[in-house]
Amino acid sequence: MATVDRWLLPDGIEEVLPPEAARIEVARRQVLDLFQRWGYEFVVTPHIEYLESLLTGAGQDLDLRTFKVVDPLSGRQMGFRADITPQVARIDAHTLRREGPSRLCYAGSVLHAQPRALTTSRSPIQLGAELYGDASPASDVEVISLLVNTLELAAVPDVHMDLGHVGIYRGLARAAKLSGAVEQQLFDALQRKAMDEIAALTEGLPAQLSKMLRSLAELCGGREVLDLAQACLVEAPDDVHAALDELLAIADALSLRYPELPLYFDLGELRGYHYHTGVVFAAFVPGEGSAIAQGGRYDDIGADFGRARPATGFSTDLKTLVTLGQMQLDEVEPGIWAPDNHDVYLWQAVQKLRQQGARVIQALPEQTMADALEAGCGSQLQLLDGRWQVVPLAS
Amino acid sequence: MATVDRWLLPDGIEEVLPPEAARIEVARRQVLDLFQRWGYEFVVTPHIEYLESLLTGAGQDLDLRTFKVVDPLSGRQMGFRADITPQVARIDAHTLRREGPSRLCYAGSVLHAQPRALTTSRSPIQLGAELYGDASPASDVEVISLLVNTLELAAVPDVHMDLGHVGIYRGLARAAKLSGAVEQQLFDALQRKAMDEIAALTEGLPAQLSKMLRSLAELCGGREVLDLAQACLVEAPDDVHAALDELLAIADALSLRYPELPLYFDLGELRGYHYHTGVVFAAFVPGEGSAIAQGGRYDDIGADFGRARPATGFSTDLKTLVTLGQMQLDEVEPGIWAPDNHDVYLWQAVQKLRQQGARVIQALPEQTMADALEAGCGSQLQLLDGRWQVVPLAS
Repeated sequence: MATVDRWLLPDGIEEVLPPEAARIEVARRQVLDLFQRWGYEFVVTPHIEYLESLLTGAGQDLDLRTFKVVDPLSGRQMGFRADITPQVARIDAHTLRREGPSRLCYAGSVLHAQPRALTTSRSPIQLGAELYGDASPASDVEVISLLVNTLELAAVPDVHMDLGHVGIYRGLARAAKLSGAVEQQLFDALQRKAMDEIAALTEGLPAQLSKMLRSLAELCGGREVLDLAQACLVEAPDDVHAALDELLAIADALSLRYPELPLYFDLGELRGYHYHTGVVFAAFVPGEGSAIAQGGRYDDIGADFGRARPATGFSTDLKTLVTLGQMQLDEVEPGIWAPDNHDVYLWQAVQKLRQQGARVIQALPEQTMADALEAGCGSQLQLLDGRWQVVPLAS
Repeated sequence: MATVDRWLLPDGIEEVLPPEAARIEVARRQVLDLFQRWGYEFVVTPHIEYLESLLTGAGQDLDLRTFKVVDPLSGRQMGFRADITPQVARIDAHTLRREGPSRLCYAGSVLHAQPRALTTSRSPIQLGAELYGDASPASDVEVISLLVNTLELAAVPDVHMDLGHVGIYRGLARAAKLSGAVEQQLFDALQRKAMDEIAALTEGLPAQLSKMLRSLAELCGGREVLDLAQACLVEAPDDVHAALDELLAIADALSLRYPELPLYFDLGELRGYHYHTGVVFAAFVPGEGSAIAQGGRYDDIGADFGRARPATGFSTDLKTLVTLGQMQLDEVEPGIWAPDNHDVYLWQAVQKLRQQGARVIQALPEQTMADALEAGCGSQLQLLDGRWQVVPLAS
């Protein structure tokens, strides 16, 4: 490897330089503080774990995105976390083992062996919040509200929220007694809204069920979709109605809280179908092809860790929020320049100013006032009347 | 893997739960704020890179500690960072390319395939600060001072600082024209203070050099060691004297700044010998076998990235600081409990309180006052006289 190549970073792997890194850090703190004010407790999950723990309940997609190594200590296969959600579920189910609801949040880098899309980062900083132990729509409303507030805090403009519910398709598929393979094919066709394929796959089913399954591809749009769905799905089994009622309740509560937030419904769009069990949601902004944040209900994920618990939550990427948002991330105050001088009283003056919160930069040998300006200093320490005092840089 | 095993974490890999995770977060912010007040700019380095970049100038020890995978996109070997210092050096040398001195700092997880010691974490949270572009002892004094202040901030009691200088042994070894293999053997023997081996290895050398090399194993102790060294090494080549003078200047400056800090000198202890080029230092506390923080000068590390630069810095582990320190990490204020009620005025009251910084926890269906206490709430929102008001929890 030539010298000139040693600084090359792998595709989709980024470093963050000043001053952008400071902005990321400020945003991280503000979001975590918001989570804390909503009662979400911070957890730090490991970057590496045994593969079985990381991929439990997660599905093949995550498997393909996970970097794998053998642990030299145990000889067992480990993976680098590509998602933090399953780790937090393990903490709730196994480690905390609380009786009542648990609210947990996290912020940390994840690594993707394969990017989600061609131009997507392979090292996002995943931020998220999870609510365990309550199966009611109140929890879904809370986590979606917290996501909306997170996007508001990050000042991301023109957000709209997509809502769906995997229970609707799942209930219809169950009623139609679709085989696993056909359920999967139909699911794929629905995601692509491939009407011909959907028609072909539902052809042999009872007319009512076939019609209802086909209607899912067209049940997308504004709030009116939910009324339309109640009409289209009137003959559906009870669990489908229960799912639709849940989605309605969540939508109504969100509209009450955020009357300005555009809600969009898509009953055939089933992001994270293999993972989710109830409402699913995603936030979009114009010009971005993929969701900037997503989540949903994923009850029973903890079962693989020894305790099934209702669960709902969301995740997003800190770097995306900072890039798309117009957050006021405080600029650094001008610093104070201290001369290159070994006087212990100068040292004491410098330390006192730092304790008071000032940024004080000590000159190194041969540095000049030009360096003070370059370092962003607006004033300097000078010995006046036998005391080290802060004076404007110009003087 | 049985269900019961899925929650097992690999040896030396930890998760951090509430409330400890919140304490770690507060400590992280306080240390980064301290670095910022000293003029150190925050950078975020990637968790994964091409192996050649990660291991440049680092030596075999880091190679053995680094987890390796093949990048599915490029087919090239990558490593998970086991140390952040070489990454920051790359940023200084290649990406920032500043003319004058650069002060950079970082905080992030690293992963060790092999632990440093049997009971050592394989996933420390490395914190550090680096100063590039100035070769004078003033920079070494600054980074050691910043380390002392970091340990003071973390309220780690009974710290003492070990100081050494690899230029002393290196200069003598060069004067003695030791072969690479013998230089390494003698280095190993010096680390173990194996006097017999040292005597055997230096036997064939000119008497003066042999005596000086042997004396290094005994030149350890308080400030008096430096005077003793000047006597013992009076016949040494100029570069050895220059190294000793540097060490003296640094020690004197530190004593002036921190008269209470015990300094301990060991001219034969050469931690990071292959990596360092000047002063080396490490902080110890009673009862801990290994150093709790370490650093030193490592000039020219940037050469492999296209630009040689003087460099000095230190690193430590955030989890160690929080565990050993007696930092006052603010307890969370009691929260406010909001009833499970869909009233939009309640929602507005909750949001207003959160904007003011309060932690407000919204009750979920079927939760009771016992849950409010468990969630650490001290007051609650109640509808009184048609307004949602905060009242004590008991009422």
